[in-house]
Amino acid sequence: MRLILFFAFIRFSAEVGAQPLASFFSGDLSRDTPAESYLEDSTFLKKLHDEALLRGRSYEDLRILCKTVGHRLSGSPQAAMAVRWGQRTLENYGFDTVYLQPVQVPHWERGTPEVCWMQLSDGGYEKLEALALGGSPSTEGMLEAEVVYVASLAALQSMPAAALKGKIAFFDQAFDASLISTFKAYGACAAQRFEGSVRAQKLGAAGVLIRSLASSTDPHPHTGVMSTEGDLVPAAALSTSSADRLKAALDKGVVRISMQLNCATFKDASSFNVIAEIHGSKGTDSPVISFGGHLDSWDVGEGAHDDGAGVVHSIEALRLLSVLGYQPRNTLRCVLFMNEENGNFGGKTYARWVRDQGEGHLAALESDRGGFLPLGFDLVGSEAQLGWLNSMGTRLEGFGLHELKKGYGGVDIGPLLEFYPNMLQLGLSINSQRYFDHHHAETDVFESVNRRELELGCAAFASMIYLVDRRYEAPRLR
Amino acid sequence: MRLILFFAFIRFSAEVGAQPLASFFSGDLSRDTPAESYLEDSTFLKKLHDEALLRGRSYEDLRILCKTVGHRLSGSPQAAMAVRWGQRTLENYGFDTVYLQPVQVPHWERGTPEVCWMQLSDGGYEKLEALALGGSPSTEGMLEAEVVYVASLAALQSMPAAALKGKIAFFDQAFDASLISTFKAYGACAAQRFEGSVRAQKLGAAGVLIRSLASSTDPHPHTGVMSTEGDLVPAAALSTSSADRLKAALDKGVVRISMQLNCATFKDASSFNVIAEIHGSKGTDSPVISFGGHLDSWDVGEGAHDDGAGVVHSIEALRLLSVLGYQPRNTLRCVLFMNEENGNFGGKTYARWVRDQGEGHLAALESDRGGFLPLGFDLVGSEAQLGWLNSMGTRLEGFGLHELKKGYGGVDIGPLLEFYPNMLQLGLSINSQRYFDHHHAETDVFESVNRRELELGCAAFASMIYLVDRRYEAPRLR
Repeated sequence: MRLILFFAFIRFSAEVGAQPLASFFSGDLSRDTPAESYLEDSTFLKKLHDEALLRGRSYEDLRILCKTVGHRLSGSPQAAMAVRWGQRTLENYGFDTVYLQPVQVPHWERGTPEVCWMQLSDGGYEKLEALALGGSPSTEGMLEAEVVYVASLAALQSMPAAALKGKIAFFDQAFDASLISTFKAYGACAAQRFEGSVRAQKLGAAGVLIRSLASSTDPHPHTGVMSTEGDLVPAAALSTSSADRLKAALDKGVVRISMQLNCATFKDASSFNVIAEIHGSKGTDSPVISFGGHLDSWDVGEGAHDDGAGVVHSIEALRLLSVLGYQPRNTLRCVLFMNEENGNFGGKTYARWVRDQGEGHLAALESDRGGFLPLGFDLVGSEAQLGWLNSMGTRLEGFGLHELKKGYGGVDIGPLLEFYPNMLQLGLSINSQRYFDHHHAETDVFESVNRRELELGCAAFASMIYLVDRRYEAPRLR
Repeated sequence: MRLILFFAFIRFSAEVGAQPLASFFSGDLSRDTPAESYLEDSTFLKKLHDEALLRGRSYEDLRILCKTVGHRLSGSPQAAMAVRWGQRTLENYGFDTVYLQPVQVPHWERGTPEVCWMQLSDGGYEKLEALALGGSPSTEGMLEAEVVYVASLAALQSMPAAALKGKIAFFDQAFDASLISTFKAYGACAAQRFEGSVRAQKLGAAGVLIRSLASSTDPHPHTGVMSTEGDLVPAAALSTSSADRLKAALDKGVVRISMQLNCATFKDASSFNVIAEIHGSKGTDSPVISFGGHLDSWDVGEGAHDDGAGVVHSIEALRLLSVLGYQPRNTLRCVLFMNEENGNFGGKTYARWVRDQGEGHLAALESDRGGFLPLGFDLVGSEAQLGWLNSMGTRLEGFGLHELKKGYGGVDIGPLLEFYPNMLQLGLSINSQRYFDHHHAETDVFESVNRRELELGCAAFASMIYLVDRRYEAPRLR
């Protein structure tokens, strides 16, 4: 686990627009007046935005990841190719260090695409759009059973013990459209996907269907991970429009489902986190600011928003700071995490490694909410840290970054909090309105990403990394 | 001009979710404490958002406008059908009054689609994607001439008098991508479209091509209005990718253009603004709050963002207030303006009519920046009015409406300021990043609008109309 592979150390020297800012940044921080530091920061944040918008690389990097690698579930050949792509892309930008960090990951495959029909009470069949959930077992041939409607996971508790015996449980909890943040709507019904199979198995069910976790009514099913802690039954997500049709059929009478899922779980596979650094002022002894997104994706679409966007936000943020000649106080470490989607072994492995290295770890930032318009940052931290974040507001609002509040950091950086509970943890906050039209679905493709919105996300991420490095004084590192 | 057609007065009675709020709103304003009024407003703004997101009509209304009417340039049969659609839609929602206001509008037609080729110095031809500008004369058959590169309108001043004689001037000023607001980038180079033909004609040019006013590099030309004040030469917009190809060809040698525009201007046509009202507490003597978008569009695409979105924002805002049983102090008047795109005769006619009626006119609001995520409101007004707007910030920020600043109101409501200089004027501010991918182009179609973003815009618009009605005390009305 401690074996780290080091790769070429190529200093970037001929980048278009590179302007060494050493003199600009050589002042002693403690001598800055508030007005001076505001001016210095505002000037630099504008440079970051100009570089991202005028000479940005993120959109082309994302195109290559989406179109030449494609979707990339842990353990797949595409995930292995994504590691090579990430390593080579980071090496080409000439950061101080680029290396791979070994991670053992689950290996599940969808197999031959699934099929699902409903047989109506008049005997006729209709096709339903379905995707097996990640971790589901196979149906071992065609599974045919009657459907039992379950409004939500909570409704299971009031059902008789035999209610699901030999049946297919259909969990139909929908997003609450009145919530402004679609992430809150997702959070409120994600449990039916994660726990539906384990919970229904305990009541004797033969299989599970869930309504996709999506904002809109459309024919695209959305997959995602399910718990494999316990005995399982095969489980699949229906598109929201298929879920509506199934519900309408159930309102008229008995419905039987015929479905076949051909998925299988294999032994764990070897993979990697991909890491690049610019060293802080104390070299390899410098405290660390980690930031990243996750390199793996679900096995449909192209993982463009989830989380290709976060990957290129992170790579581009380091490139922007590098090409502007920024000399950080802390080591800036870009981590492209493996296996966020079904296990988080990249994040867990990384956190243990940081702890084992005995590193001082100042802060962690994640981008895992898509490539849409950035709106601000969510904090996981103390009131004092929230105070610091809000004190940066006047620097950020001119770039449209108004939402600075307590909220959610990120799955990959979460495990660091166990070892660094006082660490500053920030999640890039993004316009969430369109996110769940694409999340874990075949519609999560490069064409759904807008170039300028993606580039603004890169600049926002780089801006916060800079502000944390330059203006955040940790109470204590550990 | 004073002939107003009155239509059915059908009170909405069986709307899903309708809750009479008469008692809720019956209090004397002056007795409210700040905490009470904040609570009352926050509660009502949440109701507006719930209604828009859970039972909203805007997305379906926009679909019908885009798919059954289509694009709708002033004077076209589609514009006439859009008037009927607007009238019928407003009547069906049962507001106090619905009427049409006659407007004389220009009538220009594109005719048989235009063609444009460039002949390279080696003799070969390449097709360029072009759209005639609105108001352009025809080329009267094929126009063939050499191209002269003009970096921007400003560059004309340093050119020799004969530089353009018999040539086609190619204005190639691009958007400044480093500006966060794409409207600012548009504003900085819009003059080449508006004045290019008139200015080049004075230097003897035979025709004009302009680089489309667009953020991205793509094959879709963007049309738009050009000045017809003076002698004209035929003028067309090239897609940004065609402009890049033309520039590259010019860098290699002489380029000749062969283009044919078949457009023509006809005599002015009769059309209408479409108006609906909920009367204020003094009936028809109440002061007025006007709000709207424009019903006409350019003659390509479907006018979904420009300004179908503003039209349904306005209709839905009035419906939201009506269905929640809101009893306004001022008369709430929804105006679907005709002819914003090429003349603004709807806005001018409306302003004169309001003045001639001797109405007290409190405020005007416009939505004409697309159906993307709403971000806040731009003010045209005094420091005192800005102070009032900012005092509403805590009520709005929970709905993501953070950007409250001086800026731009709207073309249609602009003429009111001549007669009501102290009026409050507000423009709904929208995420601008994708707007100029669609503006005046064949890509401005219903499918580019996200349902939730559109619905949030409706709720934002309704929220501000409510706040102006309930909380804004005008210094004097005229």
